[in-house]
Amino acid sequence: MSTQPITPPETIRWGERGRSIVVLDQTLLPSERAERELVTVDDIEEAIRSLRVRGAPLIGITAAMGIAALARRAAEGDAAAAELEASVSRWAARLAAARPTAVNLVWAIERLLAAVARAHDAGADAAGLAERLAAEADAILAEDRRMCRAIGEHAATLLDDGDAVITHCNAGALATGGIGTALAPIYVATERGRKIRVYADETRPLLQGSRLTAWELAEAGVDVTVISDSMAGALFSRTPPDIAFVGSDRIAANGDVANKVGTYGLAVLAKHHGVPFYVLAPTSTIDLATATGADIPIEHRDPEEIRRGFGRLTAPADAAVWSPAFDITPAALVAGIVTERGIHRPPYGPALAEAVAEAERLRVEPPAAEPFPAG
Amino acid sequence: MSTQPITPPETIRWGERGRSIVVLDQTLLPSERAERELVTVDDIEEAIRSLRVRGAPLIGITAAMGIAALARRAAEGDAAAAELEASVSRWAARLAAARPTAVNLVWAIERLLAAVARAHDAGADAAGLAERLAAEADAILAEDRRMCRAIGEHAATLLDDGDAVITHCNAGALATGGIGTALAPIYVATERGRKIRVYADETRPLLQGSRLTAWELAEAGVDVTVISDSMAGALFSRTPPDIAFVGSDRIAANGDVANKVGTYGLAVLAKHHGVPFYVLAPTSTIDLATATGADIPIEHRDPEEIRRGFGRLTAPADAAVWSPAFDITPAALVAGIVTERGIHRPPYGPALAEAVAEAERLRVEPPAAEPFPAG
Repeated sequence: MSTQPITPPETIRWGERGRSIVVLDQTLLPSERAERELVTVDDIEEAIRSLRVRGAPLIGITAAMGIAALARRAAEGDAAAAELEASVSRWAARLAAARPTAVNLVWAIERLLAAVARAHDAGADAAGLAERLAAEADAILAEDRRMCRAIGEHAATLLDDGDAVITHCNAGALATGGIGTALAPIYVATERGRKIRVYADETRPLLQGSRLTAWELAEAGVDVTVISDSMAGALFSRTPPDIAFVGSDRIAANGDVANKVGTYGLAVLAKHHGVPFYVLAPTSTIDLATATGADIPIEHRDPEEIRRGFGRLTAPADAAVWSPAFDITPAALVAGIVTERGIHRPPYGPALAEAVAEAERLRVEPPAAEPFPAG
Repeated sequence: MSTQPITPPETIRWGERGRSIVVLDQTLLPSERAERELVTVDDIEEAIRSLRVRGAPLIGITAAMGIAALARRAAEGDAAAAELEASVSRWAARLAAARPTAVNLVWAIERLLAAVARAHDAGADAAGLAERLAAEADAILAEDRRMCRAIGEHAATLLDDGDAVITHCNAGALATGGIGTALAPIYVATERGRKIRVYADETRPLLQGSRLTAWELAEAGVDVTVISDSMAGALFSRTPPDIAFVGSDRIAANGDVANKVGTYGLAVLAKHHGVPFYVLAPTSTIDLATATGADIPIEHRDPEEIRRGFGRLTAPADAAVWSPAFDITPAALVAGIVTERGIHRPPYGPALAEAVAEAERLRVEPPAAEPFPAG
């Protein structure tokens, strides 16, 4: 049995002296593996909006580290604590609105705002506030890595040697700070020497499946085959996969799941063919304040992504386009939701509420970070 | 009520003196509307294989007119009738193998071979044989136009004013010599002043939905909205269309339907949401010699159409790809099959056999064509 540990690609890190963040620019993959430094709030907002960084957990981490970096840079000047607190509020509001569907973004920003409140109560100066924010962002990143690993461990129990998994979009290492959510059990099972085959829907319009999922799985030596979204039906009718794993951008209190558009169609196919359909996401994706999927706001994307998404006109230039970025999969189609707390089964209401409460109880408030080491 | 007649784009016509054929090059749409003259059997085969002409009815017409044009050109030399008969057999074999799934191609070629046999029995010389082939090709084209109109008339009875239709791929005017199959009732209903809205799946990998269906419907003034294939599920769950219309490349004797990959997934969604799913195709698409969908050969396309379909790398350059061009929708998911003979309901076995027999009975053998008018 191989026990080669998977080394996920580094999706985000601190820039020089923690005054900026550096992200892997995912819009360039798979042609080019290049980093991009984000210095201003405009840079960070643009990177989130244009999907240079994407994936619900990772955009939360990006917003958290981004705000902390902005605060460190501001604290280098003469900013008073009150002034910096006001700036953080403005940055938080800007970034929280960058993408509406993923709740992890708001969740991470709220954790930073809570850190601001604690620093304020403790009478911290601007530099102290900045370091508390950086510590909170570091904690979010470290927790994310542990959550990915835990999700992978729990869900790997669903995989047998030789299984074929179908997935949609990218809920892999590239969507997180760790080994991903939907792909985490594939990495864990592969580390343990189980042979897992993956079918990756290419995921129009932005092709996160063919560009990102196929790339990161192949980099890790996992057997992956790309299909267009439209070919999933043919696959189910000829050689059905054993299981479907997807991520999520927001899970409502009743277990309804928002995820990349196309997920619902895959869930219906899986139901029709009796293939178990699992959603894998950290508890930070569960939004107990949202009762059902109908209450989740759905982002709509630029029609040009459909009309000339490949740099070439692929529809009449003025064609009407309907382009929701996400869809809602009702809880009834979901065999299980896997979080870092375990595999949750229907009825989801009580199970998800308990998982969130337990995750909150286990969270330890981080000490203020040490000042970022010079150089 | 508007009764503006729809003028479909001319997809195919005879070239100079009927010695070549001229097709609308559909790979260039919607950016460019350009014709391409096909002179040699290589030209014709390449145009069919590379989807410059596509759509099951149209590739049958193209093969028939193409063989007739080749025969006319050959008959201009000193070819003896026996020699020309042998050439026609070779061309027929080449073109019949150009695409394996659509049965209309083989059906049209067999009609030309039957015309060769009749010409042989009548002692026709090479020129006479060529004109008989041209007459048969003209008859196939004229019948196709009538079939499209009849399919449209029958299926228009399924549409109410204000209905929303979803369709996949292009089974429109561009797939035929007339007003299409799946789109024909939309044109007929529109001509009669009914307001019909259409959702066109873009249809990866080759985007016949966004490039062709959206183009021809918009040209005809029909309200059309493009979605990616992956968005059909979101559409069904939010504002389900009233009905689904698709074409077919081959219908087995039991009513199982081969059509562009993605059709099956759409049929499963329609079933899940109680939306009636109709297949519209001429009787020439029904293959009574093929018992069920499992017996239909499925063409697989070049992985590059997925990996860099539009000139840009959209997956790792060496990614494994599975790319069937068609899938099979079982008869159980089909509410009705509409041919030029009417709307056929389950059980399909006897209904389809009767429709084919009736179509054969009604076919009149064409007289030999007049020599093509000069100039």
